[in-house]
Amino acid sequence: MTRAGTKCIEAIFRFETADGRGSGLLRFLPGDAETPRAWTLLTALEELHGLEEQLGRRRPKGWSYSRDFAGPNWLDRRNAAVAYEDRDPEVLVVGGGQAGLSIAARLAQLQVDTLIVDRAQRVGDNWRKRYHALTLHNQVHVNHLPYMPFPPSWPVYIPKDKLANWFESYAESMELNYWTGTDFEGGVYDDQAQRWSVVMRRPDGTKRELRPRHVVLATGVSGIPSIPDIAALRNFPGTIVHSSQYEDGEPWKGRSAIVIGTGNSGHDIAQDLYSSGAKVTLVQRSPTLIINCDPSAQLVYALYSEGPPLEDCDLITASIPLKVSRQAHKLATEHAKNLDKELLDKLERKGFRLCFGEDGTGWQFMYLTRGGGYYFNVGCSDLIAEGKIGLAQLGELDQLVKDADLVVLATGWKGQEHLVRKLFGEALAERVGPIWGFGDAQELRNMFTRTAQPGLWFIAGSFAQCRIYSKYLALQIKACEAGLLPR
Amino acid sequence: MTRAGTKCIEAIFRFETADGRGSGLLRFLPGDAETPRAWTLLTALEELHGLEEQLGRRRPKGWSYSRDFAGPNWLDRRNAAVAYEDRDPEVLVVGGGQAGLSIAARLAQLQVDTLIVDRAQRVGDNWRKRYHALTLHNQVHVNHLPYMPFPPSWPVYIPKDKLANWFESYAESMELNYWTGTDFEGGVYDDQAQRWSVVMRRPDGTKRELRPRHVVLATGVSGIPSIPDIAALRNFPGTIVHSSQYEDGEPWKGRSAIVIGTGNSGHDIAQDLYSSGAKVTLVQRSPTLIINCDPSAQLVYALYSEGPPLEDCDLITASIPLKVSRQAHKLATEHAKNLDKELLDKLERKGFRLCFGEDGTGWQFMYLTRGGGYYFNVGCSDLIAEGKIGLAQLGELDQLVKDADLVVLATGWKGQEHLVRKLFGEALAERVGPIWGFGDAQELRNMFTRTAQPGLWFIAGSFAQCRIYSKYLALQIKACEAGLLPR
Repeated sequence: MTRAGTKCIEAIFRFETADGRGSGLLRFLPGDAETPRAWTLLTALEELHGLEEQLGRRRPKGWSYSRDFAGPNWLDRRNAAVAYEDRDPEVLVVGGGQAGLSIAARLAQLQVDTLIVDRAQRVGDNWRKRYHALTLHNQVHVNHLPYMPFPPSWPVYIPKDKLANWFESYAESMELNYWTGTDFEGGVYDDQAQRWSVVMRRPDGTKRELRPRHVVLATGVSGIPSIPDIAALRNFPGTIVHSSQYEDGEPWKGRSAIVIGTGNSGHDIAQDLYSSGAKVTLVQRSPTLIINCDPSAQLVYALYSEGPPLEDCDLITASIPLKVSRQAHKLATEHAKNLDKELLDKLERKGFRLCFGEDGTGWQFMYLTRGGGYYFNVGCSDLIAEGKIGLAQLGELDQLVKDADLVVLATGWKGQEHLVRKLFGEALAERVGPIWGFGDAQELRNMFTRTAQPGLWFIAGSFAQCRIYSKYLALQIKACEAGLLPR
Repeated sequence: MTRAGTKCIEAIFRFETADGRGSGLLRFLPGDAETPRAWTLLTALEELHGLEEQLGRRRPKGWSYSRDFAGPNWLDRRNAAVAYEDRDPEVLVVGGGQAGLSIAARLAQLQVDTLIVDRAQRVGDNWRKRYHALTLHNQVHVNHLPYMPFPPSWPVYIPKDKLANWFESYAESMELNYWTGTDFEGGVYDDQAQRWSVVMRRPDGTKRELRPRHVVLATGVSGIPSIPDIAALRNFPGTIVHSSQYEDGEPWKGRSAIVIGTGNSGHDIAQDLYSSGAKVTLVQRSPTLIINCDPSAQLVYALYSEGPPLEDCDLITASIPLKVSRQAHKLATEHAKNLDKELLDKLERKGFRLCFGEDGTGWQFMYLTRGGGYYFNVGCSDLIAEGKIGLAQLGELDQLVKDADLVVLATGWKGQEHLVRKLFGEALAERVGPIWGFGDAQELRNMFTRTAQPGLWFIAGSFAQCRIYSKYLALQIKACEAGLLPR
């Protein structure tokens, strides 16, 4: 087969160690028949002896429900489990989006007592509350959560409310302990006890202290809005909102709106405002990657529709080293550039400044290194090319604001290190260092792995990333709890 | 392989006709090598050309959600679909348990506009509202609903509340139009228009007339309680309830209860009362089949845990003719009788009158012919054998009632023909005739197939039956709508 443009032979193998079972993936370059050359090797532990997930034939028998008529039934037990009245969770997961749900589901299968807290009022609100037209920008078969695939009847691009309702079903069906309407206010780590002391503000305003062994931050990239100080807006008398506060274009019908920022949010909000009958100008701050959502942006997921089972696709994805991955994404970016040539030319003629990522590695690496800077075109670029949505550069803002009623700052989010500082203080944030992006390493910094702070873990990213790496993160936490790894 | 104790060669094949694609199953008896003898043959049409289910690679693209920012989004469309403000459904499904959900999901995939109505306040209440300790009495892998298998983490025996919540998730995830709190009050069929005119009472008390082409009765066997006139109870001053009204044993702690009827409900309620601290006597009306829930009652499902995919298991199940099926169940019943010998002997010593179904064909045929008459032992038989729950025969009731505070009538349900008469009148009920059971035919009467009343269909039974036969029922209705079959 071909990976990153290179012909190779690929083999998946299973192995066993003293501690558990794993899967591996080995690639050879063909060379001549007698001397194939090894190219890449992944080994990944997948389960610990005696601590396997209770799935399928290992599923719980459920005797306790069916025999003990006098005792609490399933619902009684679930209600007691989620109340945490007489115990603390071993793991506290902060944030209940795809990252939080994935890691909590994995930990639950490993019998690790886990609680998710999220400030939203209802499971799924992190998607439900976003703008009216939002759908996922990649295809359904890439986005399954662990254990519970989306039904085969679902549309290719999942609408936000459908996804949000699935999150509710998922939390219920996977028996996740989930506190909605709960603010995580941070806390301190007790080195002596090897436990956190953290504070939660419940929906009724009361506070609850918990002492979990582990805290997993699953707040994603959308923790703290990044609001730049833009001189031209200082005396703007109209409405200014960050993209995270934008809900609906309807109130802006017939009025004039400026959207600053040309990433996905900026484009989508501009399109929403335009569709609602507003006069819209999109303001570009820096060169941006534009790629048609379908088929161009789906090229990097080709593996997932080629036929191998999801688990194998995930292993293949995890097995590609950074250098090979960059090469693969360069090729995909080049391919997409050709497919989208007509649109890109039109945009350039309108003055849109394009880019294609560092060394032409495209949107995926922009996501992995800076969390954005690109737009999956679902129509807004066409509207710009047709002149239906105005385009301006940041220097023109002074003039533009004079006629504007609304400014939307689609200016992204602050890095997770800001959130760590806010929740746990300067010293701890310093110790942990930068989060996300590669730095000099081959893996995302502080993601899915042990950090410099005992008991502190991070998970974030796309549905696929959360599904794939939650498995390894859960296994590390379980290994800590089982005494196989130091805390 | 061996089916019904007979060595045979089994082959699944696919075929195509002018109208669609199907699957078949052929069995040979080995004979000598040159002259194998054909034994059984099933052919089943599975999809119609051009009218295939939109699943997997055929799933809807979802463009309309992702491109049209101005238009209604997925949630807006769902809300409009379920409101039926400006249109009528093509198919009205009465009852939203496993039968109703299965047929509605199948029809939805075939693009047939379908509405479920159920009198319960919440999807799943038909299970949720039953007694505290209830779980399914057969195993999880036999009970999947169409398209959305239960997650692999679920217990072997699903507790009622977990199942009920899954029904809610299912209706949501499969986008079923479902009116809760709605009474179906019956109606008439208009031969001219080839439509029904039926009346629904909504939760707010208002009535809504609908004119669907088809009505599917999915009310199950629990439509109308069967309340026998028992002389000994005529002057009973205590509480008498039918098993359907029984919820919880707690109020009867320390008091004396009689349960009349030795089917599943009778035994389960007796066990629930005993566990709650009541003094309980179970009263037997007629000989009853007793079988341990695990493993004995699971023997007939062995196929489903042997490894073939669910779809193949369902095809194999559907392919077994009545005569062969009776033989298979005789063998399983004999096997179970041996496994359970110790328990059965103890029960007989207590005076329990046992039976093993017509010609020893066991509980499954009792279910198929009369809807009950057996108990899957999850502990109550042991309590009877140990004398912890009293046992009496009906003739002893006169004496017993003198000390009793509560009588529970676990006396089953009236046949669906009674419901048909109530909803649609005598003439229509006469035309349709008996429902369920085999009569002289090889298939269940009026089930999953055309009836003598155009536009009237029935579905009922276990999860497996509903899953398997909803497919063929939906296909028949679709074929009517497409003009391939007369109405």
